[in-house]
Amino acid sequence: MPYVKIEVTREGVTRAQKQQLIAGITNLITDVLDKDPSLTQVVIQEIELDDWGFAGEQVSVLREKGITAQKK
Amino acid sequence: MPYVKIEVTREGVTRAQKQQLIAGITNLITDVLDKDPSLTQVVIQEIELDDWGFAGEQVSVLREKGITAQKK
Amino acid sequence: MPYVKIEVTREGVTRAQKQQLIAGITNLITDVLDKDPSLTQVVIQEIELDDWGFAGEQVSVLREKGITAQKK
Amino acid sequence: MPYVKIEVTREGVTRAQKQQLIAGITNLITDVLDKDPSLTQVVIQEIELDDWGFAGEQVSVLREKGITAQKK
Amino acid sequence: MPYVKIEVTREGVTRAQKQQLIAGITNLITDVLDKDPSLTQVVIQEIELDDWGFAGEQVSVLREKGITAQKK
Amino acid sequence: MPYVKIEVTREGVTRAQKQQLIAGITNLITDVLDKDPSLTQVVIQEIELDDWGFAGEQVSVLREKGITAQKK
Repeated sequence: MPYVKIEVTREGVTRAQKQQLIAGITNLITDVLDKDPSLTQVVIQEIELDDWGFAGEQVSVLREKGITAQKK
Repeated sequence: MPYVKIEVTREGVTRAQKQQLIAGITNLITDVLDKDPSLTQVVIQEIELDDWGFAGEQVSVLREKGITAQKK
Repeated sequence: MPYVKIEVTREGVTRAQKQQLIAGITNLITDVLDKDPSLTQVVIQEIELDDWGFAGEQVSVLREKGITAQKK
Repeated sequence: MPYVKIEVTREGVTRAQKQQLIAGITNLITDVLDKDPSLTQVVIQEIELDDWGFAGEQVSVLREKGITAQKK
Repeated sequence: MPYVKIEVTREGVTRAQKQQLIAGITNLITDVLDKDPSLTQVVIQEIELDDWGFAGEQVSVLREKGITAQKK
Repeated sequence: MPYVKIEVTREGVTRAQKQQLIAGITNLITDVLDKDPSLTQVVIQEIELDDWGFAGEQVSVLREKGITAQKK
């Protein structure tokens, strides 16, 4: 019965990446909580950069300043 | 004051169907909880088939395999 | 695959009322969208009166003033 | 760590208005809860008028009847 | 019609602070979007420290290490 | 910046299991989307069995009938 919602900025997430997220989270929940995978729902919601604020600034503004969210 | 969010895959839900969902849920809450209908908010969010995962698979993949969510 | 979240103030909703909401919404979605009821998830979340704001006021304050959400 | 989600009907909210909402909410949370602003996330989600129901009616229908949400 | 959800760790937020958040956000939305304040709903949800993860760690663990979210 | 919400029935999820979910999802998002883990937030929300409906029934009723969500 688990339901998982992933919100992420819309910055070119591919169909294959979405599939990896869905499969990975479903497997994780099955492993950790012993849940039947056919009961797990995962919803991905991409958010426009103007619509996500971080530290009081739109992410679109942060990106224009060269600030990314990538792993260093 | 109730707030209801409905998430459903984007597969051709019509304006009339949305109106039926909104009216039906508002009436149900009024009947069951005796709430003033003018205080009930209903939000429908359609989710792309690539963005909904079920049993570890994207719904878009399930649909390609001929698996539907229709009542049998 | 539909997922429905109902947020309502915590004011004595009974187990039977919750069951009526769950059955009613599941039936509505089956009727309107022709979805297999075994794919519909409904989650009810009760919110404390101090935690819900309406028109800029906590609902707990509105209730102290005798303002209710009941159908007239 | 606060996370704030704002859902609003899609009726011409500008980029500058979104920035005002993000900055205003981040400042409010910093002032009231003494939280580091760099830990506050704000997400704005615009909802189509057909997808928001109020008092059992789609907002698109209410707007056609001349009913607005503007401050009087 | 705006609906706002605030999620914050459960660390002693008082009733008065909640009222300040509710009033502040309602005023902000009225000012920025010219919305009738009686249509704005704000819901606050406090999350237990074991249930919030940041940078891959439970906030309860971060707090045990002396890491806070306070403004410096 | 990703934000992840996990909703799961309240059936004895331990602190260690929550930590595994938080670490696992943060690592998955870092691996798949190359996101800085210090920007990923994960929130777990446990839902009472009376408050989750599946196939039109409360999960509490399903459990009384001996129907579980465990992996077979």
